[in-house]
Amino acid sequence: MSPDTTPTDAEAACFEAGIKFGTLYHQFAGTPISPDSAASLATAMEESIENQPHCTEVTVDVRLEALESELADSTADYTELTGRFLEVEIVVDYEGCAVLTRMEMEDGYPLMRLESVRDG
Amino acid sequence: MSPDTTPTDAEAACFEAGIKFGTLYHQFAGTPISPDSAASLATAMEESIENQPHCTEVTVDVRLEALESELADSTADYTELTGRFLEVEIVVDYEGCAVLTRMEMEDGYPLMRLESVRDG
Amino acid sequence: MSPDTTPTDAEAACFEAGIKFGTLYHQFAGTPISPDSAASLATAMEESIENQPHCTEVTVDVRLEALESELADSTADYTELTGRFLEVEIVVDYEGCAVLTRMEMEDGYPLMRLESVRDG
Amino acid sequence: MSPDTTPTDAEAACFEAGIKFGTLYHQFAGTPISPDSAASLATAMEESIENQPHCTEVTVDVRLEALESELADSTADYTELTGRFLEVEIVVDYEGCAVLTRMEMEDGYPLMRLESVRDG
Repeated sequence: MSPDTTPTDAEAACFEAGIKFGTLYHQFAGTPISPDSAASLATAMEESIENQPHCTEVTVDVRLEALESELADSTADYTELTGRFLEVEIVVDYEGCAVLTRMEMEDGYPLMRLESVRDG
Repeated sequence: MSPDTTPTDAEAACFEAGIKFGTLYHQFAGTPISPDSAASLATAMEESIENQPHCTEVTVDVRLEALESELADSTADYTELTGRFLEVEIVVDYEGCAVLTRMEMEDGYPLMRLESVRDG
Repeated sequence: MSPDTTPTDAEAACFEAGIKFGTLYHQFAGTPISPDSAASLATAMEESIENQPHCTEVTVDVRLEALESELADSTADYTELTGRFLEVEIVVDYEGCAVLTRMEMEDGYPLMRLESVRDG
Repeated sequence: MSPDTTPTDAEAACFEAGIKFGTLYHQFAGTPISPDSAASLATAMEESIENQPHCTEVTVDVRLEALESELADSTADYTELTGRFLEVEIVVDYEGCAVLTRMEMEDGYPLMRLESVRDG
């Protein structure tokens, strides 16, 4: 590995932030969810991901309106967790670099996005 | 399918109970967990599985002593959820048949067990 | 536990079959899938679940037509695995009781069903 | 967001690489695995993650020796997939930035590491 390809702290911070997002999404996608159980699932997602290294804050909002709208068209009273029911913000701090990342719906898809990278 | 192989209500109730156990375990195994986040994860596990059809009660106890003992031997302050940190009881009611199931450690393995089947 | 609530072998076999179904679904739901990667995922699902105790055969068919139809309406070239892309058959043998279970779409939902129970 | 916090392409590439790693690990951790089923699971992991955007190559090696050694001490003939059975390499290319990442055991822990970032 030549010296000029050595990752910077900011790049490592972005890598760490991505790990948290992939973890959050793929650990919990598919979980049975209803309007009544949404709050406890959101709290568990936040607290479990905040355990991971360098993760300073996770905020999970369940989009209750989208959830209720899907259930209104359904004979079931619960569904499976997927990206269109979520808005997530994750903050990572790695060696003084603060990275803010967000997942939101965009054109019908849940998009994970790097918002800002602030060097220490 | 010959008539004598048609499942009874009690057998269907046991099948439903097994689905809940497989779901609970494999949805949440691997989740980052620490003593501080254990309670919120247990609550989310209970409430999400109780959404499933015919599931009347789910009780999840995190074995904090086993969790703390693993972390005492570790340089990390969290680990991944696995069966040795869990005691779970699930009650299913299907067409009046009540099935009680439990997961506990036995000889070092988490064993899922059908405890009782009470016909309606 | 009174004697009349002790599970029969057939009931235990049905419980075991349910565990396999819940495991298969919630371990793999959410996996990125495309027509090109469908076959390897189906094989891995079959072989991993066949490791579980008393599980004699697992057959996973990915409903390629449903997958391709969803992708035709999408700007992405992959999606997440969910029940509407799957047809699954699982055979469990427990103490000589053979249980056949199946998951298929019914009225727009993936339904897990106990097909037959044949006592040994 | 002030201009100086706008992520670079290299930082976005590292974020994308992290997402792939978190996905791979938390989608598949907990899967029943044995020496016989290890190869099909590794292939499915590679092909499913390669579906994700900007992911050019995924290489999954199951550490068969570690797996067999764990099973030798066990009464079971399978176990659950976890990091100590895996060596993974993921290459991401985002807007011409190539990022190489690796997961290996280090001091008894599976460590995900950013190896190199090569700007386009």
